[in-house]
This record gives sequence, structure tokens and C-alpha cells, in this order.
Amino acid sequence: MNLKTYLVSRQKLIDRALDWYLPKANRKPATLHRAMRYSLFAGGKRLRPILCLAAAEACRGKIDNALPLACAIECIHTYSLVHDDLPSMDNDDFRRGRPTCHKVFDEGIAVLAGDALLTIAFEIVSRAKPRPRYDMSTLLREVAVAAGSQRLIAGQVADLEAEGKKVKRRELQFIHENKTAAILQSSVRLGAMSANADARKLAATTQFGQHLGLAFQVIDDVLDVTQTSERLGKSAGKDVAAKKATYPAVMGLQESRVEARRLTSKGHKALSVFSNRDAETLHALANYLLEREY
Amino acid sequence: MNLKTYLVSRQKLIDRALDWYLPKANRKPATLHRAMRYSLFAGGKRLRPILCLAAAEACRGKIDNALPLACAIECIHTYSLVHDDLPSMDNDDFRRGRPTCHKVFDEGIAVLAGDALLTIAFEIVSRAKPRPRYDMSTLLREVAVAAGSQRLIAGQVADLEAEGKKVKRRELQFIHENKTAAILQSSVRLGAMSANADARKLAATTQFGQHLGLAFQVIDDVLDVTQTSERLGKSAGKDVAAKKATYPAVMGLQESRVEARRLTSKGHKALSVFSNRDAETLHALANYLLEREY
Repeated sequence: MNLKTYLVSRQKLIDRALDWYLPKANRKPATLHRAMRYSLFAGGKRLRPILCLAAAEACRGKIDNALPLACAIECIHTYSLVHDDLPSMDNDDFRRGRPTCHKVFDEGIAVLAGDALLTIAFEIVSRAKPRPRYDMSTLLREVAVAAGSQRLIAGQVADLEAEGKKVKRRELQFIHENKTAAILQSSVRLGAMSANADARKLAATTQFGQHLGLAFQVIDDVLDVTQTSERLGKSAGKDVAAKKATYPAVMGLQESRVEARRLTSKGHKALSVFSNRDAETLHALANYLLEREY
Repeated sequence: MNLKTYLVSRQKLIDRALDWYLPKANRKPATLHRAMRYSLFAGGKRLRPILCLAAAEACRGKIDNALPLACAIECIHTYSLVHDDLPSMDNDDFRRGRPTCHKVFDEGIAVLAGDALLTIAFEIVSRAKPRPRYDMSTLLREVAVAAGSQRLIAGQVADLEAEGKKVKRRELQFIHENKTAAILQSSVRLGAMSANADARKLAATTQFGQHLGLAFQVIDDVLDVTQTSERLGKSAGKDVAAKKATYPAVMGLQESRVEARRLTSKGHKALSVFSNRDAETLHALANYLLEREY
């Protein structure tokens, strides 16, 4: 398998589906729909929806059943970026190489565009096909809990509250587990659910998602220190400037890299219930995330 | 039926359920959960959830089946108030007689508390009981569409964009139909759905909700002109100060009152498919909303 080709074809598939789910840019109120699309089609790597589809494939499910859930997750991810970038939060001017939503539109519209992306995520969930083991209530709850006040939003609050403070490793792990790993983990869980995975495979996928999600954020922290803004498409060195709680700040750069490898390796091990062939893409994606440079 | 007693007992029922659904105030991250509860338990009249329960009763459904949907709607209503009050939107310092969420906490927390209230609304929807005619996907879509970019949020965008402009009656109706009537209409529709209402009763409830929702906002506009801030529990006269598009501004105070009565009367007529006894509470609520002074 050529991973580059795979990623590009998956990105195209997801972009087409998102374009279909989102109201057209000229649909009233046009400002709002343009803002939603501006942020959603800003060249994101679509890692979460790609992981969702790959988990579905590992469980021998159909891509079509996973696609609405994958797109819902990407809308939630994008909403969280739009709101996190607001002046009242991280106050970021650049994201994915372009001015942030509130810089192009205004702050009020950015708040509302984020709200609308979060809301449409749930509308898209309603289009998913319930499975014998996972009814619509279960799918809905999975998404709502992962995006909710004790997971995604808890991570963002803890992140804001940790700024400028000396943070212990345990608190740092709380932030990362919730801010990043919760949605990443749900991405693969939803993929498995869409494939009607049995309890053993869902548990393995959950473990994989947990380790991969943490590894992902550790690597993100490392890249913020080591890469240029141009390369990242967002302001590099921002974590240090904002005195953010990060792995390099708490355990040093070298130890952070070791930790990312250790977590990725645990992710690989979690996949042992799958045949190598079934889990091939998930393994490749885990390595790709570890080696990425932006 | 004594309406005052009925309203108080319903408010208590809804408050108890909301308290049960929401994470406790000391639950981590405590700031966020305190902010969510601060706005949700700020003494709101619970009109939308009460209408939801009353519609369920009109369709001879069980209150318990309607309660999660009623609570979800109240969370969505509260989130929309928290975000609308933000400095980047209506910039309101008072709401329900108390300082707004962003005045007590800070702006970042108010954005996140609104996000969390919107998200938990969908988690609460997942607890509703699907009905033979209305499965979980249908209930979910009803909520997501009403709260989405072409209804609730469309109304707020149009409202922001109309500020300071001379607005025609048609545009004003678009704002009110979406900003207010969409959620109010869904409140009664969800009540009917929870009672497994047949198509005829659902259509009647939909009509009722549409007229009542518009009447509600016309009355709100009138009260903003005629009542004191103390009475309203929010800043009175704000619409005029912000050059908002309102019914009194477009058609005058007297004509607005006539319009509210006309819409309420249409609401009553829409209920003709129900026996007087079944629809007694809905009729009483429509009159109560028309005659209210705050």
C-alpha cells in the first residue's frame, strides 16, 4: 500500500462528502455558510475521519456506513479549532496556513460558525446507519460525550487554566487525553461501531485510539518547538510564548520523542486482535503520525 | 386548571430533570460546570420545555417520554442566550436579572459553557425513547435542524446583520421565524413526537408552534419598548439603542399588539383537531404568553 496515495484518495472522498452535507456557500445566511466552509475546507489533513474509515475497514465494515460519522467528527474538530482560535481563548491569527475565521469574518460570525459546525455534526450523525450492536442512541451518545464538558471541552478549559502555571505530568496528561485523545479515540470507535464490531474488537480499537491520541498530541507539542510556522501552517512556538502546558516543557524534548514512540508502540500492540492484513492501514497511519513533520 | 400552579409545578419538574442531567458543579473542570449551571439555573421561565410537555399531553403521551426532549431544548435555548450575550454579539451585561455568564466568568469560559450546553443537549436527546413513528434519527434531526445554520443560527446572523439598517417586514419575519419561532415550534413538535402523534396531530402542533413562536417574539419586541429593565430582568430599550429590527420599529407599537393577537388567534385555530379537553393547556399557555408582562 502506498500511504500517500491512500491519504489523498481518502481526503478527496471525505471532502466530497463534507461538501455534500454542508449548505452551499450562497445559501442564506451566506456569511455564515461561507464562514463554515472557509474553516472546514482550509486544507485540513482529515486525519480523524481517515482514522474512522480505516477502523471501519479493520473491522471489515463498509466505508459508506462510516462516512457520515467520519464527517461529523471532522465538523466537531473544525468547530473546536474555530472557537479555540478566538481572541478570548488562544487568540490565534493563523491556522492551516490561512488567517483564522474571526480574522476573515468577524468574531461574532466566528462564534456562530463554530456553533453551526457543532450543530451540523449532529445532523450528520442522524444520517448514519444504526447497526445491530450499536443503535442511533449509542452512536449519538458516543459523539456527544467525546465532544462534551468532560472530554473535549474539559481539555480546552484545563489547557486555558494551565497557562502560565507550572503543571505536573498528571495534569498535562488530563489535558491531552481530553483536548486531543477523546475525539481521536471516538473517531476509531465510531468506525468500529459502523462496522458492527464485536466487543473484543471495539475494546482493541478503543485502546489503539487512546494511545494514538496521546501520541498525536505529544508529537504536536514537539513540532511546535522544532518546526517553523510556515511548515506547520499555524503560529509555531506559540505554546512556549503562551506558557502552555506541553510535554517538551514538562519532560524535555528528547524524553517527549521517546514517549511518543512508546505510545505509538502500545497502539500497535493494541491491534493484535486483528489480522495483520485487516489492521494494515491502522498500523501504517500510526507510523505516519509518529514520523510526520507538520 | 390554575395556570400559575401548573407552571410552577412544571418548572420544578423540569429543573429537577435538568439538575439530574447536568454534571455536578464540583465536577472537573468545575469552572465550566459552574458556568453551565449558572446560566441554566438563572430563573428562566422554562416556557419551551413546558410547551413541549403540554404538546405531549395534548397528544395523550406520557410526560416521562417528553422530558428528555424538553430538557434538551432548554439547554439549546440557554446556550443561544449565553452566546448571543457575548461582547462580540449583543454585548449584554444582564440576563434574567443577573450579570451575564461572560461577566461572572470570563469570555472564554462563556464561549465554552455555551458550547457545552449545546453539546449536552444532544447527549440528553440520546436518552429519549424512540417511538414507533419517530425513531432516534428523526428526533435527533428535528433538534439539529431547528438549532442549525438555517434556523436558530440563521436568525441570529440575520439579526446581527440587520442592526442599524432599515428592515422590511419580510426580512423581519425571517429573523423572528428563525431566531425564536424555530425552537419554539420544535418544542411542541418534539412533544407531539414523544407521544407518537399521528401525522394530522403533528401537523396541527407544527402550525400552532409556528404562530405561537412568531407571536412570542412580537410580544418580546413590544415588552422591550414598554417595560422596565427591572421587570424584564434584562436590559430594556436595548433593541432601540442597538437599532435592532423589531416589530414596533417596523409597524408601530399598536399594530404590533394587534399582530400578536392575530397570531395567537391563529394558534388557537390550529388546535381544532384536538378535543378542547386535550388541548386545554396549550390554549391556556398561548393566552398566557400573549398577556405576559415580562
